[in-house]
Amino acid sequence: MTMILHCFGESGNAYKAALTLALSGADWTPAYVDFFNGGARTPEFIEMNIMGEVPVLIDGDIVLTQSGVIQDYISSKTGKLGGKSAAERREILRWIFFDNHKVSGVAGGIRYMMNFLPEDKRNADVIAFQAGRLKAALKIVEAQLDNTKWLAASDITIADIAVAGYLFYPEPFTFDRKDYPNIDRWMDAIAAQPGWKAPYDLLPGSPADRA
Amino acid sequence: MTMILHCFGESGNAYKAALTLALSGADWTPAYVDFFNGGARTPEFIEMNIMGEVPVLIDGDIVLTQSGVIQDYISSKTGKLGGKSAAERREILRWIFFDNHKVSGVAGGIRYMMNFLPEDKRNADVIAFQAGRLKAALKIVEAQLDNTKWLAASDITIADIAVAGYLFYPEPFTFDRKDYPNIDRWMDAIAAQPGWKAPYDLLPGSPADRA
Repeated sequence: MTMILHCFGESGNAYKAALTLALSGADWTPAYVDFFNGGARTPEFIEMNIMGEVPVLIDGDIVLTQSGVIQDYISSKTGKLGGKSAAERREILRWIFFDNHKVSGVAGGIRYMMNFLPEDKRNADVIAFQAGRLKAALKIVEAQLDNTKWLAASDITIADIAVAGYLFYPEPFTFDRKDYPNIDRWMDAIAAQPGWKAPYDLLPGSPADRA
Repeated sequence: MTMILHCFGESGNAYKAALTLALSGADWTPAYVDFFNGGARTPEFIEMNIMGEVPVLIDGDIVLTQSGVIQDYISSKTGKLGGKSAAERREILRWIFFDNHKVSGVAGGIRYMMNFLPEDKRNADVIAFQAGRLKAALKIVEAQLDNTKWLAASDITIADIAVAGYLFYPEPFTFDRKDYPNIDRWMDAIAAQPGWKAPYDLLPGSPADRA
């Protein structure tokens, strides 16, 4: 049965789920959520996900939310992009938690404020504060990639997809991959995987559609 | 073998790990990290955890970081506070991700800025922005607890411990449990569990020690 991913292009968290589906060769199709017109706040959507967020993955009777849970589920279901032992699975989960809290959880907010909020609602102090936090987190990723080709195991896993997800977006969010040589090389290696696509090529909806 | 938790009292993420150990009846002992004097930045600490964070759990040869990974490990090892099926485990993981990103990841920063940073480094705009994000997340927790006694299953799980962890701290961080009747009732139910202790009673180190 074809899995359905409720998503929209601007969501890095949706991209992490979609890229996991794409790179694992799963059978899936996107369902567009019109987030910028309240599509994640309707009663029907809240009934599906009380958190009011994409991504939501539907696999028959199973309804999953939170990109990390969806990634873990797809990896278990397909046997791809996951760890080969309990220790590797814990290491993968470790980097996904780090990402959700320190990378995506910060980069997403900066990018939203710098690109999708009206200019009069942007706050330079908030952007500067969050940019400092993002830089600290990315320095840790850069240091980890000094020692390893992939973040959490000897091959690409859902941890790499999680941490890199937001970094593939073209809009400014105080990140320039050329400042991080290891991250730059690692992003190239991810983008070289069969099935990889950039966010707005993999997901429906983009800023161009709203221009 | 006694597990060792590297921690300090002010860390809500350490508290989540410690409370999971305490409520599951595990054999553990705390090891104090002098965070406010750089104890999580020494070469020895970074060798143990490149992320430069507590908590770190040592169980023999196993070294674990990220509170969610530690909670999942303790729950699996002890058979306590976890789900009874794959579906329940996914629902638990879902709320732990939500917590790490939207509750702890925000509340921790507000509390740090309002209480532990020098006054001249506090920024009212950043606090107000983060307070708005925390309120939005807590409204979702409040709504979920309209329908259920515990967040993720029919009994208390590590998801409840994760989401409530920071909320048990006494310092101001723009949260008053009296504003959230369901959260207030649920925190009482968590605090009534055998073995429950408040953060500064369970962990070594507190603001009083540094006064």
